[in-house]
This record gives sequence, structure tokens and C-alpha cells, in this order.
Amino acid sequence: MKRCDDAPLPPARLLLGPGPSMVHPRVLHAMSVPLIGHLDPAFLTIMDEVQRRLRSLFRTANPLTIPISGTGSAGMEAALVNVIEHGDAVIVGINGVFGSRLAAMVERCGGRPIPIESPWGRIIEPDAIADALKRYAPVKAVAVVHAETSTGVHQPLEDIGRLCRHFDTLLIVDAVTSLAGLPLDVDGWNIDIAYSGTQKCLSCPPGLAPLTIGERALAAIRSRLTPCQSWYLDVSLIADYWVSSKRTYHHTAPISMIYALQEALRLVDEEGLDARYARHRTNSHALMAGLDALGFEPIAQEGARLTTLHCFAPPPGIDEAWGRKTLLQEYGIEIGAGLGPLQGRAWRIGLMGESSTRANVEALLGALEQMFLAQGWIQCAGAALDAAARIENVASK
Amino acid sequence: MKRCDDAPLPPARLLLGPGPSMVHPRVLHAMSVPLIGHLDPAFLTIMDEVQRRLRSLFRTANPLTIPISGTGSAGMEAALVNVIEHGDAVIVGINGVFGSRLAAMVERCGGRPIPIESPWGRIIEPDAIADALKRYAPVKAVAVVHAETSTGVHQPLEDIGRLCRHFDTLLIVDAVTSLAGLPLDVDGWNIDIAYSGTQKCLSCPPGLAPLTIGERALAAIRSRLTPCQSWYLDVSLIADYWVSSKRTYHHTAPISMIYALQEALRLVDEEGLDARYARHRTNSHALMAGLDALGFEPIAQEGARLTTLHCFAPPPGIDEAWGRKTLLQEYGIEIGAGLGPLQGRAWRIGLMGESSTRANVEALLGALEQMFLAQGWIQCAGAALDAAARIENVASK
Repeated sequence: MKRCDDAPLPPARLLLGPGPSMVHPRVLHAMSVPLIGHLDPAFLTIMDEVQRRLRSLFRTANPLTIPISGTGSAGMEAALVNVIEHGDAVIVGINGVFGSRLAAMVERCGGRPIPIESPWGRIIEPDAIADALKRYAPVKAVAVVHAETSTGVHQPLEDIGRLCRHFDTLLIVDAVTSLAGLPLDVDGWNIDIAYSGTQKCLSCPPGLAPLTIGERALAAIRSRLTPCQSWYLDVSLIADYWVSSKRTYHHTAPISMIYALQEALRLVDEEGLDARYARHRTNSHALMAGLDALGFEPIAQEGARLTTLHCFAPPPGIDEAWGRKTLLQEYGIEIGAGLGPLQGRAWRIGLMGESSTRANVEALLGALEQMFLAQGWIQCAGAALDAAARIENVASK
Repeated sequence: MKRCDDAPLPPARLLLGPGPSMVHPRVLHAMSVPLIGHLDPAFLTIMDEVQRRLRSLFRTANPLTIPISGTGSAGMEAALVNVIEHGDAVIVGINGVFGSRLAAMVERCGGRPIPIESPWGRIIEPDAIADALKRYAPVKAVAVVHAETSTGVHQPLEDIGRLCRHFDTLLIVDAVTSLAGLPLDVDGWNIDIAYSGTQKCLSCPPGLAPLTIGERALAAIRSRLTPCQSWYLDVSLIADYWVSSKRTYHHTAPISMIYALQEALRLVDEEGLDARYARHRTNSHALMAGLDALGFEPIAQEGARLTTLHCFAPPPGIDEAWGRKTLLQEYGIEIGAGLGPLQGRAWRIGLMGESSTRANVEALLGALEQMFLAQGWIQCAGAALDAAARIENVASK
């Protein structure tokens, strides 16, 4: 198709950074389907299907399970701004960028963040949450990041969920880099609010934030003394369009993005959640074996490493900025830089959704071996690919 | 392409409602282009082009001219939440749904809305704004809707712009249903902040909100005593990604939507703004002539009727809900219902962007004539199409 001034298309990239991840052709196709109106009966049917599939993905029966019309950070803001009122104490686990962002947003909601910090690369210890819950009671909510995209840490949630019920506190979980890639059980783990983004393990373009809100959180919303400070993110208004049979217009839904999410959710259901988690796990293990053979050091503590996002320090003496640039320019592979204290010290490699394939792991390890060999940083190639090959490839993809 | 369960595609619709409007095939194609990362140098080039073209469209030199990652209502909230602080007086013109929405958002920002009301269908009189500016000085901002989507009223802005400068007050303009369809001159009319949506006259899918913020408004933002209550919509953070050469990550940009906006803006520039405005004008006149021949009554006062969105009361005795349903089900044509006090009393017909063609005007008028004839509401068909045909078709489309 002719484009203006014969403008070139964007370059082809293999997206192995912290998101966006690769998008399945069926999802790309869904984005290009002609639009219908946001109040068209046919669109209401699509909304129902999206909500049903999102509930199954979050493993929840929450009726209020919807995509917020913004990116993952809009989901974070929606999760907080609806429940936090002026002066509310909120315990926030901070062990990376996204915990810090949660705390910043709690403050902007007029809340009082109580930071529970761990070094970058370590989990938030449930005992520290328990101590804070006792010390600062009553606490409105505990907010933690399930998959810390800045460090690759996999936060265990079940103990924290039990603690929150015991202390009658809401549990808010950032599932941006976990939903559809790692086991997540909103109802089973006593999570009251969880949010995510579409451009990670769902492999949909960025622009929507799946959000689920349970009955305990809804009760807190209903008993607010002041209206939610955001009109755009006020779920009591949004629910009248998405959940209630009234279908009252709130804002124009991002039609094409909803088409894409619908198709991405169908792909998830066709694969099956257990198979999808297993695929992410085996490809992650293959990548980690290869990186280990090349001398990379994981930032996340042992036993708490994500299988969706890998944060590794390159071997000493490697120019990390040169490495990322060369991967992008010579091989068309995008990976992510370190953030905050890890800037200049780490790479972030995502194997999320469609990006999590054995072929992509091999493409990246093969490129790294060639680059390192050409620079004289290794003496012969093959060790990383061999190490990856020793990890059994059980996944169907 | 196979889709899950051989799921059917959404039905084909001719979108002549208040948005979304029809989307050009080149824009649909742009939505399906494989993604690159939001920090990829190639994406930064696309961002620069989008900003340059948006400035030209808004007729502004404002460096901070960007698409907000949400729909038009997110643009409204961004326009207000960045400048309004607790206790600020804000004069709000209210003559329809979107003026009321502005006032509701001012309150949620902690501001003090001063409503200047006109009956639905009438403009906000500049004299009333002048009186309020004197009486309530100092006033932080005046907020008005350029094109009131709920009534079809076209608000004149130049006098209000001069008044705001005289009283050293910011002028905030809702250009959701005007940008790219009606003349709008942000710098020439002394507008400090304007926002829009992509799904109206830009004919892009919904999901982005073009926003421009001028130097006087930026000065107000810089001198805030408290941080913006929204982290997601805080333009001082967003500008570090969009405008500053730092390109600091804030949130993941909605890549595919930006691709689409880029292509939609190219189409606008290929047509030329004057030709585009003329096309909207002549097709609107043809529609209005046809509706008049059928006995429809315009809601908006004479001399202040939009050429992008037409709000008309059907002739007495016509079942308006049956009419809309029949248009959708029998003819695949979507039009909009009346809102608020116009519920059950008016239709809203959009001729925006790609939807504004003579063929679409004829399709709608022809369908209405057939429907009215079959019901015995008119004795013979042809008058509406004849009336429309008498309006010269000067537009290229």
C-alpha cells in the first residue's frame, strides 16, 4: 500500500526488551479491522468476551475485570486512586523502579506511603510486611510488584495475601510483567486489586491496562468520603459502561485496541495457561544457561528469578552500551538497559508472550557469541548455545 | 487469516455518529505494522514527525504538543490536572455534556468551578465570561468547548481569547470534535491549552488525545505549590520523554496508535487544512439541506452550527429510537442518540474526517427517505436528496 512520500516502514525488530514484546500476526490483523461504534450491540458482545477471558486469565470471579484505556502505568494509577483517600496509610514494597512508582502515586493520591525496602534484586520479605502491618495499623492497603521489571525479581505473594486478610488490609498487586507469563491466582492468593499491561506477556500492542477489583476493594470504594480524584480512571463510572447492563457512555473505548486484546486473549486460551507458563519457564532456563556460559551474572536472588524478564550484569570489561547498540543495529534485536542504580550495569532481556521462543533465545545467544568473539572477549563460540540446548525444550512453541 | 473458533469479524458499519468516524485504509494498515520499541531511535524519529504535524494542525509553535496516551477524556483531564491547584477558580462554559464534564473534573482537581451556563443549543456568550472574569478575579483559567458534541454548537473563541489575555487568565479549549475538521488557531486565538481525540475529525481509531500546552500555561505548571495529582498525566514528566532530548522513559508509549496517528496526520497534510475544512463545510451543508427537507429541526442556534457534528430533532411523530435501530440494523449506518435533556429528542450525526463525503450524506438521506416512505411519514421520496444535490460539491473527496 502506498504511504505518504513513500515513507519507509519502521525497521524490523526482534523485541527482547522489557516490552513491547512481539505481536502475533492474528493480533496485528485484528488492529486493522474496520471499526464499529463503542455502543454498537456487536461491540458490547466483544466487551463481554474480553471480560470473560480476562477473568479466566487473572483466575478471578471478580465482575469488575476490565481493560483500562491507558498503558500499564494508567492501570497502576487506577488501582491506587480509586481506593486511597487523604491520609490513608499504604505499605509499599520497594525493591526497584516500579515499587518506587507505586509510592510516588500513593503520595499523589494524598496517601501516606510506608516504604518497606529491599535491595534491588531481593524480594520484599513477608515478615517485614507483617511487622509494618502491626506497627502502623490500621493500614488501608499493601502494594507490591509481582514481577519487578527493573530487576527481574519474582515476588512471592501467598504469604502476603494471608497477612493482608488477617489484618483486614487490601492487597494491590502490580502484575504488569507477570500476567499471562507466570502463575497468578488473584482469588486463590487473596489479591484485592491487580493490574497489568497488554504489551508484555499478553503480546498485544501497548495501550490497555487489564485491571481486576474484588468485592473488598469495591466496598472500600463505595464507602469513600470523597470522590475519586480522577474522573477518567474512576471505576465506579467506568463500571457503568463495562459491567452494568446500563452500558452508560463514559469515554469512547479504544475500539481497535480492544479488538487486539480480544484476539490476544483467544491465543492465550488456545495455548492453555499451564502450557504457556511452561513455555516461558523452559525458554527462560535456556536463556539463563546460555548467559551463564558467557559469564553474565543475574541481578535477582536465587530462587526468585522471573522467567519473563531477565536482568543480568554483563561480564566485567564488556561495554554494555556498545553491546545493546550493536545488537539493535547489526542484528535488529532490542534488549533493555538497566534502570536507576543498575544503569550502565545491567541488561534486561524479556522473553514474554510471542517473544518467548527457543528460536529467539538462540538468535540472541548466537548474536552475543559472534559479537564477543569478534571483540576477542571469548576465544571460541558455541558454549552459550550448547548450554541452552541442554535445557529440554518441552514447550509447543 | 484464520481466527479462533472461526469467530466472525465485527459487522461492516458506516460510522456517522459522534465518533469513532471511518478510518482510512492507510491508517488501518499502519495499525497492523509490526512494533518497534518505544526507545528505539527509529521510534523517536516517528515521535518527532507526529509532534511537528500536530503543531501544524493546532496552528501553534508550542514545543509541548503531544498525544496523551488515553482517549479524549484523558486529554481533558490532562489539560486541567496539570494547571489547577486546590482552591483555584476556573470559569467553565456549560451548554452541554462536555462543559459539565469539564466542571466535574475541575472539582476533582480541587478547583472551584464557576459555571457560566447557556441553554443546550446556545453558545456561551463572551460577555458572560467577561462579567465573571471581573467579578471572580483572580481566575486561574477559563475552560470552554469549541465544538459541543452533545448539541452541535460551534463556540466562537477569539473574543474569549482576548479577554483571557486581558485578565491574565489561562484559556483551555476542548477541541475534541473540531481539530482537523474546523478552523482552529491556537496561537492566533490566544489559546493556552487545547486537547482533542483521535477518533473524530482525525479519523484515527480512539485511544490518543492530542494536547498542546503553551508557555503561559507551562509557567503556571512550573510555579505549582503541589505536584500534579496525576502521575500518569503529569506533563512535566511526559515532556522528558516526548520533548526533551533526554528521552527519559515515563510510560510505554502506545506504539501502534502512534503509527496510526502519524499516518492520519500525513493524510491531513496531503489534503491541506483549507481543503479539509471546505470539504467538511460543503458536506455538512448538503446534509443540513436534506434534513431540513425531511422536517428535522437543528438544536444549535443559527450561525453557530458545527459542520462536523449535527444535532437535530426528528420531525414530530417519528420514533427516534426505532429510527436509529433501523439505520443500524437494516442499513449498517451508525448515528448517535441525544444525551442528557436531548435523550429521546435528538439525533447526532457526525460527518468527521473520512466520514465526511458526499456519498455518505446521500447514503444516509436515501436511507431515511426509504424508511420514512415505508412508514407513511412522507408521501414520496427524493426531496432530501434533491435538496442536498443543490449544495455545490466543491470538495475533492
